[in-house]
Amino acid sequence: MAKVAVLGYGTVGSGVVSVLDTNAAEVEKSAGEALELKYILDLRDFPGDKHEAQVVHDINVILDDPEVEVICETMGGIEPAFSFEKSALEKGKSVCTSNKELVAAHGPELVELAKKNGVSYLFEASVGGGIPVLRSLNDSLKHEKVDSITGILNGTTNYILTKMDKEGAEFSKVLKVAQEKGYAERNPEADVEGYDACRKIAILASLMSGKHVNYEDIYTEGITKVTIEDFAYARTMGMAIKLLAMCKRNENGFFTMVSPFLIPLENPLASVNGVFNAINIHGNMLGDVMFYGKGAGKNATASAVVADVIDIVKHRGKHINVNMKAEKAVISSKDNAVRSFFVRVPLEQEDQAKEIFGSKIEVIDGGEANHEFAFVTDMISEKDFEERLWKLDSVKGYIRLF
Amino acid sequence: MAKVAVLGYGTVGSGVVSVLDTNAAEVEKSAGEALELKYILDLRDFPGDKHEAQVVHDINVILDDPEVEVICETMGGIEPAFSFEKSALEKGKSVCTSNKELVAAHGPELVELAKKNGVSYLFEASVGGGIPVLRSLNDSLKHEKVDSITGILNGTTNYILTKMDKEGAEFSKVLKVAQEKGYAERNPEADVEGYDACRKIAILASLMSGKHVNYEDIYTEGITKVTIEDFAYARTMGMAIKLLAMCKRNENGFFTMVSPFLIPLENPLASVNGVFNAINIHGNMLGDVMFYGKGAGKNATASAVVADVIDIVKHRGKHINVNMKAEKAVISSKDNAVRSFFVRVPLEQEDQAKEIFGSKIEVIDGGEANHEFAFVTDMISEKDFEERLWKLDSVKGYIRLF
Repeated sequence: MAKVAVLGYGTVGSGVVSVLDTNAAEVEKSAGEALELKYILDLRDFPGDKHEAQVVHDINVILDDPEVEVICETMGGIEPAFSFEKSALEKGKSVCTSNKELVAAHGPELVELAKKNGVSYLFEASVGGGIPVLRSLNDSLKHEKVDSITGILNGTTNYILTKMDKEGAEFSKVLKVAQEKGYAERNPEADVEGYDACRKIAILASLMSGKHVNYEDIYTEGITKVTIEDFAYARTMGMAIKLLAMCKRNENGFFTMVSPFLIPLENPLASVNGVFNAINIHGNMLGDVMFYGKGAGKNATASAVVADVIDIVKHRGKHINVNMKAEKAVISSKDNAVRSFFVRVPLEQEDQAKEIFGSKIEVIDGGEANHEFAFVTDMISEKDFEERLWKLDSVKGYIRLF
Repeated sequence: MAKVAVLGYGTVGSGVVSVLDTNAAEVEKSAGEALELKYILDLRDFPGDKHEAQVVHDINVILDDPEVEVICETMGGIEPAFSFEKSALEKGKSVCTSNKELVAAHGPELVELAKKNGVSYLFEASVGGGIPVLRSLNDSLKHEKVDSITGILNGTTNYILTKMDKEGAEFSKVLKVAQEKGYAERNPEADVEGYDACRKIAILASLMSGKHVNYEDIYTEGITKVTIEDFAYARTMGMAIKLLAMCKRNENGFFTMVSPFLIPLENPLASVNGVFNAINIHGNMLGDVMFYGKGAGKNATASAVVADVIDIVKHRGKHINVNMKAEKAVISSKDNAVRSFFVRVPLEQEDQAKEIFGSKIEVIDGGEANHEFAFVTDMISEKDFEERLWKLDSVKGYIRLF
């Protein structure tokens, strides 16, 4: 009987408790023994709750109880979660978490601390909700040379982009509806500016490189500049617009970025709609494999936390190896990344655009109706693109092509 | 240093050797030790091959060598693969295989034999090529109550259906091109009649139920009756036509079938095109999670075999639990499954069809041009549908709705 404590009785934490209750028999079968929820840490009391008696307010009750083997940190944020996790690992307790901010910021050092103390630090739920992508990367696909990981990692922005596309509604209107429905936060910055996707690709990139990819080093653009006109052009081009988070291996190390991209409809990422997430992994022998599912949601995320608890119990007394060292990864600048760009300029700048971007541009139909000139550049580097863009008198917008 | 033998130096077998060679460092890192290919069993010699010296013709050389820990059976077919695998397990060697025919027919007894002998029997590569779906079912998702598994499990038929849809070419023409390109066998029956998908869903259904789902008990329809007219109607209806293999939990046990289905374009399975496979798993807490990738191909399939070898080496001296007992699963008849059906009858039978299928049918546009009447029935049971269908003077075709 393994004893478990849950830190934070909010959405994910109460989901973890719910999975442990509802699927107790399956959890026992999978872990090889029953799991007992011994404590729930929260500032609040929960009178009348089935687990009222397990609620404690002092982390030390949990840390000082030698019976507690596994701690599920589902509080979110950096502090006090970071201190609690460190103390738990130092006291020989394994930790699993859904806390993407903390894993992106301090995951590698927490993995090393777990290793030093002969326990485990797992964080499946921090990326892609219930999708078992980290365990696959760390296990079934570990013998692959992973060349690239490309994902739609934020359900809120994907919901907004899908609605803009299908209903022709402006960003601000769709955001408002998403907020009303609870799909977007009242302060939507972390989602719409790409910060959440950035933290998740930092975690995936760290696992891919085996080092620490700092999320602050990742070039990140959100979706606030994407317009309904862009979607009309995308349809003309047989493409979809998605906020992609990507990490690619190149000759210098790794390149990673978050940005809206035009992707061909044939690409399976193009048909990932609504609040769904998807992560494509390309391995040198395997080719492409894609994982798809709800990237958030109480029970799906909680299910991934419980999968980590089970893994820890199955490997009692052993550190589960996670390919992530605290050493900083070398991240290439985006300057040398080569791609095409879709650009919209005022109609009167057609000649200027042609002069600046050369003869190899492809004109996209539909510009005149919007009093603009829309085109796709030849393959050029990000740096080259930026320099040419500066030469234009004005730009209505641009989107990268995948 | 774990010693490995490969049985059958054909497509998958040579792929396994290639993965072990090309990714030796990654394989060692994942397994925690290097793997050495000690033998390749084949009837042929391979003069000039890098691994010429490892080729043997007598299985007993391998079975009698106590150094060989893991055997990769990549021969395919029932015999002699079945005898070889049994002997290996009895001699305390673990076995992993890509052989779906054998796993569907005898997997559960081989798992039990492995357990009895304290070794492992794994078969990730038998379903979905390189997609790590069995390991996920058996590991990350084992604490879920899986309600249903729905998959596009055969790349050849998916390629043919995709071509028919996108190019408007008839089944027989597309099949011929697929055969020329090597995407379809010269004898295409196993693919186009659904037998291959049937074996794969039998394996998934066995893992889902924990018992033996006999593939001979699974109702199976292939794609030979799907026409280009059907695709035109499907587009009108906002749907795609896919060969689905499914297993659902119901009050009586399990229901499983293979058949072409009309599925809404919003369903992520609808946009799985070409030779790709996808498997959707629905868990009670997790909701939907889908795995997508190439369902065949030398290196992808081989990569999954190597993942099994690594798992076995990591768990040396331990039987890796696989949820599959030899006890027969109870499979419900399809008679009680309830759904809508898309039906096409000659135009002059419109009144008869309306009389037989009642007022709740939905007429689908486009029938008159084909001198026919096309409609979708209300939700009715398979048995009810079949009985009504018999009452019609003639039927041009029908497809189930998902």
